[in-house]
Amino acid sequence: MTAVMPSGVETARDLVGPALAAAVARLTPDVRKVAAYHLGLAGPEGALPGAPAGTGARSPGGRPPGAGKALRPALTLLSARAANVAPERGVPAAVAVELVHNFSLLHDDIMDGDTERRHRPTAWTVYGVGAAILAGDAMLALAQDILLEDAGPQGVWAARALSAAVQRLIAGQGADLAFEQRDDVSLPECLTMAGDKTAALMACACSIGSIHVGAAPELAMGLAAFGAHAGLAFQLTDDLLGIWGAPEVTGKPVRSDLRARKKSLPVVAALSAGTAESRELAVLLARDEALSEDELMVAAGLVEAAGGKTWTETEAGTQLAAAHQCLADTGMPADVRAEFAGIAEFITARQW
Amino acid sequence: MTAVMPSGVETARDLVGPALAAAVARLTPDVRKVAAYHLGLAGPEGALPGAPAGTGARSPGGRPPGAGKALRPALTLLSARAANVAPERGVPAAVAVELVHNFSLLHDDIMDGDTERRHRPTAWTVYGVGAAILAGDAMLALAQDILLEDAGPQGVWAARALSAAVQRLIAGQGADLAFEQRDDVSLPECLTMAGDKTAALMACACSIGSIHVGAAPELAMGLAAFGAHAGLAFQLTDDLLGIWGAPEVTGKPVRSDLRARKKSLPVVAALSAGTAESRELAVLLARDEALSEDELMVAAGLVEAAGGKTWTETEAGTQLAAAHQCLADTGMPADVRAEFAGIAEFITARQW
Repeated sequence: MTAVMPSGVETARDLVGPALAAAVARLTPDVRKVAAYHLGLAGPEGALPGAPAGTGARSPGGRPPGAGKALRPALTLLSARAANVAPERGVPAAVAVELVHNFSLLHDDIMDGDTERRHRPTAWTVYGVGAAILAGDAMLALAQDILLEDAGPQGVWAARALSAAVQRLIAGQGADLAFEQRDDVSLPECLTMAGDKTAALMACACSIGSIHVGAAPELAMGLAAFGAHAGLAFQLTDDLLGIWGAPEVTGKPVRSDLRARKKSLPVVAALSAGTAESRELAVLLARDEALSEDELMVAAGLVEAAGGKTWTETEAGTQLAAAHQCLADTGMPADVRAEFAGIAEFITARQW
Repeated sequence: MTAVMPSGVETARDLVGPALAAAVARLTPDVRKVAAYHLGLAGPEGALPGAPAGTGARSPGGRPPGAGKALRPALTLLSARAANVAPERGVPAAVAVELVHNFSLLHDDIMDGDTERRHRPTAWTVYGVGAAILAGDAMLALAQDILLEDAGPQGVWAARALSAAVQRLIAGQGADLAFEQRDDVSLPECLTMAGDKTAALMACACSIGSIHVGAAPELAMGLAAFGAHAGLAFQLTDDLLGIWGAPEVTGKPVRSDLRARKKSLPVVAALSAGTAESRELAVLLARDEALSEDELMVAAGLVEAAGGKTWTETEAGTQLAAAHQCLADTGMPADVRAEFAGIAEFITARQW
């Protein structure tokens, strides 16, 4: 299956990118510099040549500012459209979600010691740990503030929905860190972690646009359920790509998750299967030394032989079907439903 | 002058301590453990023996949970009373301020590499940098959420007042970090940094109690102005204690700020004075090696001779007078005004 970028993602880039740049411009200069760099709005020294003063907009390739994958902003604009308002009304909520997503990436990169993101050095390696912590803190506080500029009750509900998602993001990252020290992580624990770390913010992205424009709770809840299932399907797919994805698709070396001994869902499913291959895999992953390319291929083969690949593909399919069912059960304009479905298909498309 | 702890501080401990413990109990277990330890509600392994389940209340000495200095909570309860409501109504806002204060301490300890706080190992040294970053993040998000549980417009105003203070806290800490790398920090820059890092949250603590119960803007603004002046006077006093305070008062070794080459207000005032002693001090502080006890005494003498001590004492007096003037200009019950004045005197009392 070929993955075609849904058109809504492009639209979201054009609508949300400038608003995100304007939000970041509200931060104090030291913090703004780090946030703009992390978001790809600026180089390490601040605004790029020719960028509007104070915003640091447009990266060298002429790509709209702050685009990234722009999936979450696209979902949030659709969420507003699901409530029968123009996508522009969803922009503040989309900016808030994108700020929270990036707050979490900034802090995670420090905790995980990651030195590269989106083919650039991570912010903490450029500006130091302190400056990167502060920039993340500032983006988190700013996200809440942007939602509350709409002083009506819907602003409050949106802010509380976002802070609930933040608490789950934090729980998920905490569990992920803790898993690194353990060799007995169970599949339910791993699914809970993925639900917290990935699906919770995706559920928030899908519902907060409607919440922030005062939609009925039934719509918001239906969209949140869709987002939770789609988010889990996305993480399952991402974990499959982390082992079997081609470098030109993932932007990472092949089998990178095995190289890093990551307790991803296919690995934990394989380890939990209780087969001879499970035990062989456990021995291989417990080794102190780095694994050779040949051993990484053996490990990938063992994950597959122990049923880890099939389980993950099946579970991704189940979650995707549940996501579609949520869409079918929730009242919204037909074109909006079709676009949500298109994004769900896009982010779970097989490319291995 | 002898400093007597105002009675309102004790009351605030009794009212706010249990509510703070209950708020922390809402966090997910991994994060809760770190937050409770940092707040002194629990030992490194979680709730202390005999503590109520889920709260980890009461530290070994039988001191009320989460007391710390309890100055900010006391100011917030007074702020509610200034709006003619019972102090209990100020508890959620006091909890939110205390959560933000401690979020910032948790993150600052990581950035500054501090290994001890309140005579205990700092959280990051016990649980690791990742867990301490996450616990701070969680406390920041929780603070906003607690204010928004009051879904009326006053909840939104309070949340936005808090997030404005958070942005200034971040700016102040960012400036403080940047100052470490510079030897040309000016006195206005240093005052701005102190205003951001200390006075902004103090101003928030003094006003947010009234904001959260729906007081008139005139009252909230008058209290915020009082808090900003009192907060600056507090920082000026703290900086004097950092050089001339007795260890039994400060809990730190004598002349600790000089030992750490901290660009505190008396030091920057002395360096900016343009005297022969200013230049001598600059040479001493620029030395690569650690300063001996004798050299530290010489440095303290140079700060004094260059006028740094007198300038700081005078400025603290000016700020304290301005704080009292704000109280006089703002309508509130006489007993509340007297208690605000008492706390301002207490936190700026000379003990050197």
